[in-house]
Amino acid sequence: MTNKHLLALLTLSAFAAIAHADNDGSKLWFVNNTKANAKVVVKTKATSTTDIAVNELRDAWHGGQVTLERKSAKGLTRESFTVSQKGGNVTITSPSDAGLMYGAYHLLRLEQTLGKDAYRDTLFTETPEHNIRMLNHWDNLNGTVERGYAGRSIFWNKPVPDASAVKGKNLSTSDSQLSTLTLYARANASVGINGTVLNNVNASPKMLSDSVLTMVKQYADILRPYNIKVYLAVNFSSPAVLDGLKTSDPLDKDVQKWWAAKAKKIYSMIPDFGGFLVKANSEGQPGPMDFGRTHADGANMLAKALKPFGGIVMWRAFVYSPSDPDRAKQAYIEFKDLDGKFMDNVIIQIKNGPIDFQPREPYSPLFGAMPETQEMAELQITQEYLGHSNHICFLGTMWEEFLNDIKKYANYTNNLRGYKYRAIAGVANVGDDANFCGNTMAQSNWYAFGRLAWNSNLTSKEIAREWVAQEIGKDNKSARTLENILLMSRETVVDYMMPLGFHHIFAEGHHYGPQPWQNNPGQRADWQCVYYHRADAKGVGFDRTVKAGSGATAQYPASFGNMVENINTCPDKYLLWFHHADWNHKCQTGRTLWNEMCYRYQNGLNGARQMLRMWNSTEGNIDSRLFNDIQEKMHIQVRDAEWWKDACLNYFQTFSKQPISDTTEPPVHSLNEVKKIRLGISNYENPSAKLLNSKR
Amino acid sequence: MTNKHLLALLTLSAFAAIAHADNDGSKLWFVNNTKANAKVVVKTKATSTTDIAVNELRDAWHGGQVTLERKSAKGLTRESFTVSQKGGNVTITSPSDAGLMYGAYHLLRLEQTLGKDAYRDTLFTETPEHNIRMLNHWDNLNGTVERGYAGRSIFWNKPVPDASAVKGKNLSTSDSQLSTLTLYARANASVGINGTVLNNVNASPKMLSDSVLTMVKQYADILRPYNIKVYLAVNFSSPAVLDGLKTSDPLDKDVQKWWAAKAKKIYSMIPDFGGFLVKANSEGQPGPMDFGRTHADGANMLAKALKPFGGIVMWRAFVYSPSDPDRAKQAYIEFKDLDGKFMDNVIIQIKNGPIDFQPREPYSPLFGAMPETQEMAELQITQEYLGHSNHICFLGTMWEEFLNDIKKYANYTNNLRGYKYRAIAGVANVGDDANFCGNTMAQSNWYAFGRLAWNSNLTSKEIAREWVAQEIGKDNKSARTLENILLMSRETVVDYMMPLGFHHIFAEGHHYGPQPWQNNPGQRADWQCVYYHRADAKGVGFDRTVKAGSGATAQYPASFGNMVENINTCPDKYLLWFHHADWNHKCQTGRTLWNEMCYRYQNGLNGARQMLRMWNSTEGNIDSRLFNDIQEKMHIQVRDAEWWKDACLNYFQTFSKQPISDTTEPPVHSLNEVKKIRLGISNYENPSAKLLNSKR
Repeated sequence: MTNKHLLALLTLSAFAAIAHADNDGSKLWFVNNTKANAKVVVKTKATSTTDIAVNELRDAWHGGQVTLERKSAKGLTRESFTVSQKGGNVTITSPSDAGLMYGAYHLLRLEQTLGKDAYRDTLFTETPEHNIRMLNHWDNLNGTVERGYAGRSIFWNKPVPDASAVKGKNLSTSDSQLSTLTLYARANASVGINGTVLNNVNASPKMLSDSVLTMVKQYADILRPYNIKVYLAVNFSSPAVLDGLKTSDPLDKDVQKWWAAKAKKIYSMIPDFGGFLVKANSEGQPGPMDFGRTHADGANMLAKALKPFGGIVMWRAFVYSPSDPDRAKQAYIEFKDLDGKFMDNVIIQIKNGPIDFQPREPYSPLFGAMPETQEMAELQITQEYLGHSNHICFLGTMWEEFLNDIKKYANYTNNLRGYKYRAIAGVANVGDDANFCGNTMAQSNWYAFGRLAWNSNLTSKEIAREWVAQEIGKDNKSARTLENILLMSRETVVDYMMPLGFHHIFAEGHHYGPQPWQNNPGQRADWQCVYYHRADAKGVGFDRTVKAGSGATAQYPASFGNMVENINTCPDKYLLWFHHADWNHKCQTGRTLWNEMCYRYQNGLNGARQMLRMWNSTEGNIDSRLFNDIQEKMHIQVRDAEWWKDACLNYFQTFSKQPISDTTEPPVHSLNEVKKIRLGISNYENPSAKLLNSKR
Repeated sequence: MTNKHLLALLTLSAFAAIAHADNDGSKLWFVNNTKANAKVVVKTKATSTTDIAVNELRDAWHGGQVTLERKSAKGLTRESFTVSQKGGNVTITSPSDAGLMYGAYHLLRLEQTLGKDAYRDTLFTETPEHNIRMLNHWDNLNGTVERGYAGRSIFWNKPVPDASAVKGKNLSTSDSQLSTLTLYARANASVGINGTVLNNVNASPKMLSDSVLTMVKQYADILRPYNIKVYLAVNFSSPAVLDGLKTSDPLDKDVQKWWAAKAKKIYSMIPDFGGFLVKANSEGQPGPMDFGRTHADGANMLAKALKPFGGIVMWRAFVYSPSDPDRAKQAYIEFKDLDGKFMDNVIIQIKNGPIDFQPREPYSPLFGAMPETQEMAELQITQEYLGHSNHICFLGTMWEEFLNDIKKYANYTNNLRGYKYRAIAGVANVGDDANFCGNTMAQSNWYAFGRLAWNSNLTSKEIAREWVAQEIGKDNKSARTLENILLMSRETVVDYMMPLGFHHIFAEGHHYGPQPWQNNPGQRADWQCVYYHRADAKGVGFDRTVKAGSGATAQYPASFGNMVENINTCPDKYLLWFHHADWNHKCQTGRTLWNEMCYRYQNGLNGARQMLRMWNSTEGNIDSRLFNDIQEKMHIQVRDAEWWKDACLNYFQTFSKQPISDTTEPPVHSLNEVKKIRLGISNYENPSAKLLNSKR
């Protein structure tokens, strides 16, 4: 492109961007998929899936002719695809229609990210790293979404639309619910997500009733063209609760029969049904241990029922019976010895960290600890512990850190190669808000999850750049600014919420704001914030060393465990996770712990302000509606960062007895004031700016 | 004092301060007047006034014997006093009992500020610069206080206590209202305030009814021992409204007779009654111009009625009939030509600035403009335009600036010498809150007003140091910190509210927060904020130059007028008061106007934070109740500073079209958000933290 052309393009795109004020997030990352009218040829029989590929390319591809051809080749899995460009014309091949569709989406992504000529005269193949890349929706049958900050469920809040109306990318339907579901499916397909659990892991037994299964079948029909399988979270007591069986004991013959019959019924309706996700014996949910059985007994009983039909069981390791004084050790303790006892269509689904989706956790020691068992990671896309949909927090960096660690310390890549089911799950942040995710920036996390599930070697920077290019255009002069905002956001949130290894000092229930003083008499110790930080006159932090603490470090391989066991080699970012450090402990920065805390909280607040400043600099270069929506969220975020900083520094100062360091702004809320804050919100709500202001 | 003694004293006082948590402000600046049991001798006949002096010294003086002696001497005025110390014993002489009392208070102040031996073997005389040093209470008969931020009226909210119970400093009374009034009187006496207007300048005609005058007499009896005269604000229509006269025309014989009779009646009850304060033909108040007469006609008619009894008329120059497009010029225009037409017991009471008690105004050009007329300054102690009692703002610096300017440019000192009535007034910040002033720091303004009224050559630093010493002790290691907080506070408030000569961009009505966009259709132009700042695409500010604007600079002496007429010599602090400056105008700092605005608002916010940080550093060294009370106020102040900054920068940015400068924190409230803020408070209320938070 000549400079002259470049200038013309820049001018044109700048003008177009300024003129628009219509990006309300409802188009997801397809906002710039403009009418291109490309020439697309399908060499093999057209299906609803190839129709999607054709339509997408025709609408948005600005290069030469694209040919789609179904074709197997050595080394390719079903969903692999190959793209070759020659003389401006492109050929996409794959062993499956799904692979052709993924290839089409990938081509469009390359065009938007790098330009249509970036891959001229090249040939490359993409094969997904995980063959099960799934969302977990925590949606309830009453339409609420647990930890949902984007409205109500897209599945259980309105009548199921008629699947027969769906034909590929049919966005012209007048059925708004169908449009929503189609766009949802399209978004998933565009980043390779190929499975979805339609309901909350705190599952209602009614999910398996005939009437609900009828709806599930309809969803399956809508999602199938996009290569998305449906899964269900099931309640382990379903046989007893739903059909009056005397027990739900997994070793009971009648129970086993019930599940076998139920599986048969489901597959008769949905031949490609994916399987079950189970939260058992965790936080009040029923499970095999209620009947004196093991997790393996329970999981295998379900796996046996599904096996004839190719279904799988994802059994969650998020358990913490109070047998050990350290909750971080529980999952490992409960599961480690069951290694090798699970059927081959069972996968143990493990949260990234040993506690619960905190802003920063070390990886869970269960990863790599069960060589004879298939494991999968459960990430949380919805921002339960990250400011809900009020805070801008790109999670690509968080997941990159986690994935790198389990590759480095837990042999993740090698293990995955040995699995039949190479799965990964993300707890969805999707609701029926016009923008799906509470704010448009949060869409980047849905996007990033899909991309990492496809290829965990992508860097967060690459993913941020891709998403930004699709959201506001690669030639927009604010693109690098937005990319940098995304990349700094998670570390900023960690700093103003829980730096240095702090964890779980959130307000109880909704988990929105700070409540490090939380300590309700009579409740389980590990439901109290004070349990996690253990502040006293000497210092702060949870001693998990073998030498003097809970010994959790011993659950890790030596390469990681030895590093964090020693306070001098433990990275500052995990300091208070693994150590009860003196207030005057010298951190790796040279500052004392107390001064480092002051520094970190201020740094978080400064970072939030910096993000806002950077965002403000994009005004005029990007869609004004998008600008205003996100600016409003960032205003809340900065004010919340100040609230976090003030609450935590004021509270921990009552132990450290040291002054707030000179470079830290003095708190503008007293401890008394912040202690009085009670947000009257449920676990299904994002607090409004008005509510927050009235409390602060 | 030996070092050993000093150390002992410091240790003792530090211990005492830390142990206490009882300073709720209710003791005013007598908090450290501890039981001393000094020996005091009165050489002349004891009176209720000498009793006060004796009691105060006995209770709080830690030096040798004090002898009080009434004695005239050359060059001394009635209230002058002489203090001589010899061998540890002190003699105070004065021509009057009042002077002896003032001498006693001065001696105690010296002890607390400098130590009891600071003036050993010295002899000095103090003579007040003004002979009328008065408070103006804007209290209404219904108990409210206009622009009162410390509760309700101490005069009109409860039954008047029995004056016969008052015997000097009788603090042991069980009548809490009497305690309040006695402490009020004591506070005034301690700083030399010798007059008080008991009611609002927006005066009810009922003030002159027999029943109210009976109460006024009782107050006069309570205040008299403290050398405090009572005055009343009167409604010019009183004859017609109160007694049904056909008119209140000052040239009407019946009206004149009515006032003469009223004066006679008042003096029969209160022989030392001070006189009348009048707000006439201003903001809807009646006045002589309603009858085609002049301010002189009206003032002289009242002066004539009071003259036989020695009473005076204070006639306010706060008028602004809309005859000129520039409100700042009105008072000068209405009064200048009346010079020489007022009786010799009339004083024209002029607000310090030409508009209305703004955070910063240039001095009013009426000062020095009427050489044949007695003038007096009206200062505002209550913080109508300075964050009410929520913001810490010491006004000594503001008044010092004003007094220096009128000395430098308006010949104030010389004029004063020529006056029979050398008066100065301050609009009181007193209410029935336990701490009298809404917060304890605001007491320093009451104190500072009294001290400056006595001696306008005192620096704000000297006054701050005196007050701090009495409030927390001179040996307290936080004394200098508190002094510095006070001294930086007003400039900080100016910066975050209205830097660079901005004025009157307050929310309408209550005047608490920012509302620079205020522009109500159909109302007087000069009641709109946009009238005062005149922002447009070119620049901002009110052009008051002769060359291109309203010509207000011509009302000043050349020494001041020429300086401010020229944009290059006009001090930046008055820039937008006198000029409509371009957004890119180069300020004296080298920054452009827009960048200087960004800098100033940020500087104000930083200053508020710095004050809070400094205050925090006093924790443990001062009474913890005082610490907490003020910290809470400072929290509000910082949050308000952010609100002001965000509102003003966001709003003016819509005109400047320039980015917020890099060194300024990006606003965390959008213009839309701040525009929605409406504080539901009257002109009698201080907004609570809760109300403010619910709105922001």
